Amino acid sequence: MNCIIASTSTIHGSDYLAYLKEPLQNLYKGVSQILFIPYARPGGISHEEYTAQAQKGLAFLNVEVKGIHEFENAAQAVKNAQAIFTGGGNTFLLVSQLYNQKVIETLKEVIKQGTPYLGTSAGSNICGLTIGTTNDMPIVYPPNFKTLGIIPFNINPHYLDPDPNSKHKGETRETRIKEFHKFNAIPVVGLREGSWLRVKNNSIILEGTLNARVFEQNQEPYEVEPNTSFKDLS
Amino acid sequence: MNCIIASTSTIHGSDYLAYLKEPLQNLYKGVSQILFIPYARPGGISHEEYTAQAQKGLAFLNVEVKGIHEFENAAQAVKNAQAIFTGGGNTFLLVSQLYNQKVIETLKEVIKQGTPYLGTSAGSNICGLTIGTTNDMPIVYPPNFKTLGIIPFNINPHYLDPDPNSKHKGETRETRIKEFHKFNAIPVVGLREGSWLRVKNNSIILEGTLNARVFEQNQEPYEVEPNTSFKDLS
Repeated sequence: MNCIIASTSTIHGSDYLAYLKEPLQNLYKGVSQILFIPYARPGGISHEEYTAQAQKGLAFLNVEVKGIHEFENAAQAVKNAQAIFTGGGNTFLLVSQLYNQKVIETLKEVIKQGTPYLGTSAGSNICGLTIGTTNDMPIVYPPNFKTLGIIPFNINPHYLDPDPNSKHKGETRETRIKEFHKFNAIPVVGLREGSWLRVKNNSIILEGTLNARVFEQNQEPYEVEPNTSFKDLS
Repeated sequence: MNCIIASTSTIHGSDYLAYLKEPLQNLYKGVSQILFIPYARPGGISHEEYTAQAQKGLAFLNVEVKGIHEFENAAQAVKNAQAIFTGGGNTFLLVSQLYNQKVIETLKEVIKQGTPYLGTSAGSNICGLTIGTTNDMPIVYPPNFKTLGIIPFNINPHYLDPDPNSKHKGETRETRIKEFHKFNAIPVVGLREGSWLRVKNNSIILEGTLNARVFEQNQEPYEVEPNTSFKDLS
């Protein structure tokens, strides 16, 4: 496997994908065409608009970006892809489309076989076992909550620490993830914006400059530093 | 119909249900027993613990609170109930249980026939047409996203305005609701903590001291003041 599983596409004060420039040059080395999966449609933008945005964000790589919607057979496009990028947006929409277009199994296979894969936000959520720890609104009803299982745990992207001064009574991110663990045994890695997981063969390493917060069932959450291996978290 | 559909059970610096004391005295007038639906299990607490919490919160009414889990036939319990209260917690869990226990149709019927109903947070979400605008994590996969449709629109409880100083790139509540409207025509009322809808026969009125924010498909969101009628929002 050869993946970057990123919390976000964009960090504050920086351009789309700009903070990932170096790791992406490494991930996509030797690649001339990237298959973009725009199904998550952030803000409801069209597949075409989103693919153009990805093309622009990846311009520094000097590659061609093709949207999966441009192909007649989506699963075949995934199978033939040199490299893949799934952008963020709404996880429920993304997963619904992956099931409806019957690409979920093929996507899993090619990633396991080594096709370079970048996921950001919703595109990272689907690398876990389920979408049970997405932050998104359930704007459509997907056929299933199960996802790729490229990594043996779930991601919570855009992880946010509780605000100690908040007067809001809605649940914090930590409270929600603890609730998830009352009904699920799957570990969860809270990835702060600017962090990503580098998956290479069987290794899974936390990259970026920030700590991540790990939630395991029946344990107190704990912080881990960059370069931590998550290979044995399951 | 005779319902209070509240954004939250608790406002900052105040006890559970305390801010709703007067409206609840009115809603539950003449009632000696309230059926409590604890299925949303906030933080994963048990049905028993949650029912005890509701009993304590409603002590000022001098009524008996019985949990729906104490009855052999949940639908029958709903049918026979003098009055009902569905507490907050996780909306996905609540809806799953309502379907699994086959009470959703009966609950809808008795509310339409006038059984007094209080919903807070998740218990309010289910009064709309779908759970498509819940803020909760999808910790379990429900058989359906459709809900009671007591009101002809959806609620977004615990509505939060965007923080102009935020450096976080995760979507704001408003962005998420706009995304919902790319794929759904259902109007959404963002109810701030401390606001509730008072449903009586065919009237639906915003109560509390705060404005609510209304989102309609293909329109700019707008603010409405207390005492606004939502009867024609659909």
